[in-house]
Amino acid sequence: MNDRFLRACRREPVDRTPVWFMRQAGRYMAEYQAIRKKHSILEVCKTPELAAEVTLQPIERFPLDAAIIFADILLPLDAMGLQLEFIESKGPVFHKPVRVENDIQQLIPVDGESFAYAGEAIRLARQALADRVPLIGFAGAPFTLASYAIEGGSSRDYMRTKDMMFARPDLWHTLLTKLSNAVIEYLNVQIRAGAQAIQLFDSWVGCLSPDDYEEYVLPHTQRIFSALESKGIPKIYFGTGTATLLPLMRKAGCDVMGLDWRVRLDEAWATIGYDLAVQGNLDPLILAAPLPEIKRRVQRILAQANGRAGHIFNLGHGILPHIPVESVDATIEYVHQLSVREVGA
Amino acid sequence: MNDRFLRACRREPVDRTPVWFMRQAGRYMAEYQAIRKKHSILEVCKTPELAAEVTLQPIERFPLDAAIIFADILLPLDAMGLQLEFIESKGPVFHKPVRVENDIQQLIPVDGESFAYAGEAIRLARQALADRVPLIGFAGAPFTLASYAIEGGSSRDYMRTKDMMFARPDLWHTLLTKLSNAVIEYLNVQIRAGAQAIQLFDSWVGCLSPDDYEEYVLPHTQRIFSALESKGIPKIYFGTGTATLLPLMRKAGCDVMGLDWRVRLDEAWATIGYDLAVQGNLDPLILAAPLPEIKRRVQRILAQANGRAGHIFNLGHGILPHIPVESVDATIEYVHQLSVREVGA
Repeated sequence: MNDRFLRACRREPVDRTPVWFMRQAGRYMAEYQAIRKKHSILEVCKTPELAAEVTLQPIERFPLDAAIIFADILLPLDAMGLQLEFIESKGPVFHKPVRVENDIQQLIPVDGESFAYAGEAIRLARQALADRVPLIGFAGAPFTLASYAIEGGSSRDYMRTKDMMFARPDLWHTLLTKLSNAVIEYLNVQIRAGAQAIQLFDSWVGCLSPDDYEEYVLPHTQRIFSALESKGIPKIYFGTGTATLLPLMRKAGCDVMGLDWRVRLDEAWATIGYDLAVQGNLDPLILAAPLPEIKRRVQRILAQANGRAGHIFNLGHGILPHIPVESVDATIEYVHQLSVREVGA
Repeated sequence: MNDRFLRACRREPVDRTPVWFMRQAGRYMAEYQAIRKKHSILEVCKTPELAAEVTLQPIERFPLDAAIIFADILLPLDAMGLQLEFIESKGPVFHKPVRVENDIQQLIPVDGESFAYAGEAIRLARQALADRVPLIGFAGAPFTLASYAIEGGSSRDYMRTKDMMFARPDLWHTLLTKLSNAVIEYLNVQIRAGAQAIQLFDSWVGCLSPDDYEEYVLPHTQRIFSALESKGIPKIYFGTGTATLLPLMRKAGCDVMGLDWRVRLDEAWATIGYDLAVQGNLDPLILAAPLPEIKRRVQRILAQANGRAGHIFNLGHGILPHIPVESVDATIEYVHQLSVREVGA
């Protein structure tokens, strides 16, 4: 097996810097669009054969160093009864958002059975991968899930979310405890089914001050990471806009910290500490630039990583639909080519 | 005159920490809503009597230490021909966005005459204020203006904006030069008419990496600050999500750095350097919390400022429409009460 990704997660030397992309199975690929013409996002997520097929699409096409299961960070909320729908122009919408105490009480408790389809998808994807590259499982983190649950969809200023957090911290912690329980079930299903690493997506946690992260979020992410039946499989924690949160986020108990492009990788790594691996951090929009500009940016990030063991190349957020596949190919090639080194060097 | 605000901008000792709020004339006030029932935002902005009246509304009601002229950061784009409209559910929309080279060539050059209404609004507001508190003028910064011009409105990932920046840096710099020219004209009109401080709003610049800020934005903000006929009136530079950009933003040439809530005020001030004043940085959503929670947060920020000369209390972004006026009143009271000190102490 190409184990560069897992070795880098464990901060072991690698022959080339491993690279994968968030949302690497996505709309920028014609193969994915063909599937989505016939099936909704939720259908693909909940039909193990389709989820596994889409998971493999980028692996068949590009020399990536890891696969990530096709799913959605919001699936735990759907299982809890919030009625998720993806609307083309608006993104995810919850028809039963969480606004008052009673909404929290009515959340459906979930267990491993609720996510049986996710386990099956992982098993099929592992089978199809046949150990070519490792398979990553994932879930949304409780803050990010809460923001969608409370706002009823995407948000710009997280008004209702913070209103609950600041005015009703009792409700907030009850909600985050329930969300965390669901996340733990969901991730453990994936781990038992064969996920070889997991990533917790706290995509919107960067809207919080460090004090608020510490008070309202950190206890819950800590509980999740410590409750995973991970037996040594790497745990990645990712968010955007997290420059000031990184020293607190590392206390959550992850092995790898995901970085977005707003921080310099070298400065962020020094801040977090070299006893953690880091993953990132190219601005996803760079992939729409001319190839020489992409190459210049890849080079810059590799220079900041400075050959230190424990760097996984990735974007600072997911690939966008308008990115040319040629640029994805070229980016992977640049990462591998510009990072060649002797193992143990 | 109550000159606490101007003294703090100059890092001189004050008897109490001065406080004003971004968007302090806004929808949370019934007096403002009454005016807006009869007039659109653009009508209020472009009718000097109305703009001055709205500017004074929060000053008549609250013991604020500064007034800010009622206007919109996007007015320079409207003057350049992009056809601005505020749509209730969507926010600002430009009917003629800037997408290709020809769009940039077609931008209408502006001069002081284009902003005659803004000068008149400042004069009327100064008259009505009768030196009770200083009056702040403002404009959008070129990056933030470019993002609205190119996207045609608000955006989540600034896709088209960065596509131009990364793929056509020649067009980008031409556009930012033209936008900067308009901003300089607009701010100088306000300064000549009597604005006693000015603030440049780079609200969305935090979506950039430090390297990109330095390469694509800083030269333009530097040019603006150095071209202002400011003769010693304080210049404030504000953005959100700027934690990693602050050391570069200070090179733009401002006297006061606006901070959002994602940074701790004490750490940010140490990073920027104590030869600049700072303004901020309460999360605007805290104003929806119970009063004791607001008080706790005000106290925390004042403790971080630690009595050092050069702190202006503000929110980390504008007041939101659902904030109770009682909480605005209480916040001002807490700032004044908890920061009482002997001048020169």
